[in-house]
Amino acid sequence: MKFCSQCGNSVEVRVPEGDSRERHVCPDCGTVHYQNPNVVTGCIPEWQGSVLLCRRAIEPRLGYWTLPAGFLENGESTQQGALRETLEEANARVGIGPLYTLFSLPHIDQVYMMFRGPLLDLEFSPGEESLEVQLFREDEIPWNELAFQVVAETLKYYFEDLRSGDFRLRSGVIERLPGAERRYRTILHP
Amino acid sequence: MKFCSQCGNSVEVRVPEGDSRERHVCPDCGTVHYQNPNVVTGCIPEWQGSVLLCRRAIEPRLGYWTLPAGFLENGESTQQGALRETLEEANARVGIGPLYTLFSLPHIDQVYMMFRGPLLDLEFSPGEESLEVQLFREDEIPWNELAFQVVAETLKYYFEDLRSGDFRLRSGVIERLPGAERRYRTILHP
Repeated sequence: MKFCSQCGNSVEVRVPEGDSRERHVCPDCGTVHYQNPNVVTGCIPEWQGSVLLCRRAIEPRLGYWTLPAGFLENGESTQQGALRETLEEANARVGIGPLYTLFSLPHIDQVYMMFRGPLLDLEFSPGEESLEVQLFREDEIPWNELAFQVVAETLKYYFEDLRSGDFRLRSGVIERLPGAERRYRTILHP
Repeated sequence: MKFCSQCGNSVEVRVPEGDSRERHVCPDCGTVHYQNPNVVTGCIPEWQGSVLLCRRAIEPRLGYWTLPAGFLENGESTQQGALRETLEEANARVGIGPLYTLFSLPHIDQVYMMFRGPLLDLEFSPGEESLEVQLFREDEIPWNELAFQVVAETLKYYFEDLRSGDFRLRSGVIERLPGAERRYRTILHP
């Protein structure tokens, strides 16, 4: 951020009065431009022990498999956002299930929430942002071709709980470890 | 938003290519300025059947009682944010408990998440944004002087579950009904 979106003047970075963090502040009109994490909302489309994955047609991670999810939009609920993303990316209709994972990704300022979503029918197909969509049983999951760590963690817990029959919310943090390699540490909270 | 924060030119409102929603777009440098909901994270500081409330020293709802909560900051997890807000507003230290409520407030583009947080000691006091902080048993809660509907809903469910001994996540939407009065409808999801 270089310019004030309210008045067009150059912004400066400083700690506003009464605040404890540096913000982009306009010295001319006084507007403080807060920047906060985004919510990514999505679902696990379920069908008789299988889940529906989408192969990404866009960057980042083009060609890798993911659960349908995307940025929550203004004016919608997290559940509505999950249904919308599932429709957009997989042309799939799901019911609203319970929240299943809530993960903070502080290295990219995102909060992921994934809901369980029983598929209402099998009329799915790739949306504009997907190359293909396909149902996978646990032993068919392309573990080495998953787009994001949060998707891998969500699927790992999902199939654990599917086997035990005891689904429960997993909430925590996924931290990216230093270095060029994609390595992560997951910390689960109570 | 009137000006591009990247180049300072005037922005226009239109649907970018491949998108389905109107955004603020810079016709000069092409930057799309997305606006998305914010996360508010907080906790229910618990102590032997009582909860700690803060009386607000700032607008909105100055003078009304609330649970410690505030905007999630970049670089922190939702749980860290809840601990930070509790320390800032009530100078109180809590443990990290499970997520207890997750409410979307689409009329103000916020997602509230409230965690249970057992107080670690009774050394609390008003922070800069609070006039006073106080423990309340259920029959002492100032129901007509609560700052926000999401706080009232959270406390209502909390004391229901405290009586039954069976705490479970409540997830849903709080909609503001049309009209000048502060009236809301809460829809719980599974």
